[in-house]
Amino acid sequence: MTETTLDWLTAHYRTVNAASAMDPPMPMAESRDLNEHWGDATAEPGGVDYLEVDAGGVPAMWAAPEGAADDRVLLCVHGGGFIAGSMYTHRKMFGHLARAAGVRALIAGYRLAPEHRHPAQVDDTTGAYAWLLEQGFRPDRLAVAGDSAGGGLAVQAMLHARDRGLPVAAGVMPLSPWFDLENGGETRTTNVRTDALFGGETPMNLDFLTWALLGEHGDPTDPSINVLYADLTGLPPMYIQAGGIEMILDDGLRLAALAEKAGVEVTVEIFEGEQHTWHMGAGRSPAADEAIRKLAAWVRPRLGLG
Amino acid sequence: MTETTLDWLTAHYRTVNAASAMDPPMPMAESRDLNEHWGDATAEPGGVDYLEVDAGGVPAMWAAPEGAADDRVLLCVHGGGFIAGSMYTHRKMFGHLARAAGVRALIAGYRLAPEHRHPAQVDDTTGAYAWLLEQGFRPDRLAVAGDSAGGGLAVQAMLHARDRGLPVAAGVMPLSPWFDLENGGETRTTNVRTDALFGGETPMNLDFLTWALLGEHGDPTDPSINVLYADLTGLPPMYIQAGGIEMILDDGLRLAALAEKAGVEVTVEIFEGEQHTWHMGAGRSPAADEAIRKLAAWVRPRLGLG
Repeated sequence: MTETTLDWLTAHYRTVNAASAMDPPMPMAESRDLNEHWGDATAEPGGVDYLEVDAGGVPAMWAAPEGAADDRVLLCVHGGGFIAGSMYTHRKMFGHLARAAGVRALIAGYRLAPEHRHPAQVDDTTGAYAWLLEQGFRPDRLAVAGDSAGGGLAVQAMLHARDRGLPVAAGVMPLSPWFDLENGGETRTTNVRTDALFGGETPMNLDFLTWALLGEHGDPTDPSINVLYADLTGLPPMYIQAGGIEMILDDGLRLAALAEKAGVEVTVEIFEGEQHTWHMGAGRSPAADEAIRKLAAWVRPRLGLG
Repeated sequence: MTETTLDWLTAHYRTVNAASAMDPPMPMAESRDLNEHWGDATAEPGGVDYLEVDAGGVPAMWAAPEGAADDRVLLCVHGGGFIAGSMYTHRKMFGHLARAAGVRALIAGYRLAPEHRHPAQVDDTTGAYAWLLEQGFRPDRLAVAGDSAGGGLAVQAMLHARDRGLPVAAGVMPLSPWFDLENGGETRTTNVRTDALFGGETPMNLDFLTWALLGEHGDPTDPSINVLYADLTGLPPMYIQAGGIEMILDDGLRLAALAEKAGVEVTVEIFEGEQHTWHMGAGRSPAADEAIRKLAAWVRPRLGLG
């Protein structure tokens, strides 16, 4: 099923991109609804309950696998370029991760750009993290995961928590993370032909996403949103996964180098031949399932599970 | 969005049919996985929790809308020709119905043919209904809904309950129901060009589905599965919805005539221009939303809600 799933994800990315390139532009509501089909790539994990909850003012959803430890939790931050995606698009993918890790997941439904600009997204993610601590979850029993734009938010949530005097989690797992809001980096050039989302004929424009998040006069080097400019001291152990053919591949590599310099324990793994956020093929694509299995194996001991 | 949604459902039906027509046949696991995309047509209702439960030996899922009455319930029976579909494909569609009705829904995950033949499907559906009564739900606070093959199962569950000496529910709502396992009826001919699932170039073969359910020597006139041959006395009020361009349209019309003769209160409504189980477009297609709104309006007073 690998090929079919990859074809599906590629086709979805192209459909979304073609819609984005429409002139006049597709209305935002329609564009977001189209984007909601992203999660159609993922098979149902099964045996997972989903409950919506107000996480201290942030809409969120529990993914509670049958038999999961109820004192361990993953805070999960979805991708979608800050302008799309939702706790619904990523319900199944994070459901797979929660089930594999044997813990509950809280999927945060943070506010989206351009209606809500930075720092709404970081505030909501950090707010959901603080809410989990208030619920009595111990920071050493809590990890954070996020894909794409959510990968940056996952790391920022730890930095903002640190700056607020909160303890950081036991681990952070950025998946195909988008960190570089200036959109530099070598792989943005070298992988332009292979990346189905950010490359190709009608690519999703990363600079547009930066504009949507920061506005006309925003600063893409602002360390409160761009982790490549932030002081990374005190970050918890980090496990970054990136696809070998995606354009933002080296965002992860560059952050890893900076984090190591700051004394952070970092593991980076590149999955050859995989597209941006290939994890969305979970339950259908062996590469997605392998990535999730490895995330679970990495995070379980950090949460004190065997 | 109507046109897009209809296109989507039509395209899905054609994809599934083309896969069914493959030589050699697509393996059952792949074919079922393809069929799982049926539910991708439906938008997330939002504000609904989903919890898996063992309903007296039958796998099932609660769809619990925020603020729903917890002493009222809909038993929901998914379609899929007895061989496919699941509580997952129909999670969102029945979630919309539950939310509109302001009650909880229990979506039954009955066993599928051909691995499990009749009467497994009727036994599981009736079993889930009996389990709800055992949980303390009053029959006059309970209604049953089902689409396609699930429409027949919904009616059969009431007949089997009656025969077991159990009270029947307050109402039953067959949606695009498939009742006639002999596959006669005028609209199977007159709508063959318009029906995207059972008509067209590579149609889903209804006789194959009958075979899958009953086996080589099964009797498609057996009243324990074919409601058109059953004694309908004592059925609760019934509200049937069918699409104007679907081939099994007159299954509903024929059952309605028979049920009226048996003294059952019946309402039938045909939605002009709609495909088989157009309800799956809920949240995106105005016709699906209208159908669901009407179902909710019909069932609420029968459940003692204003």
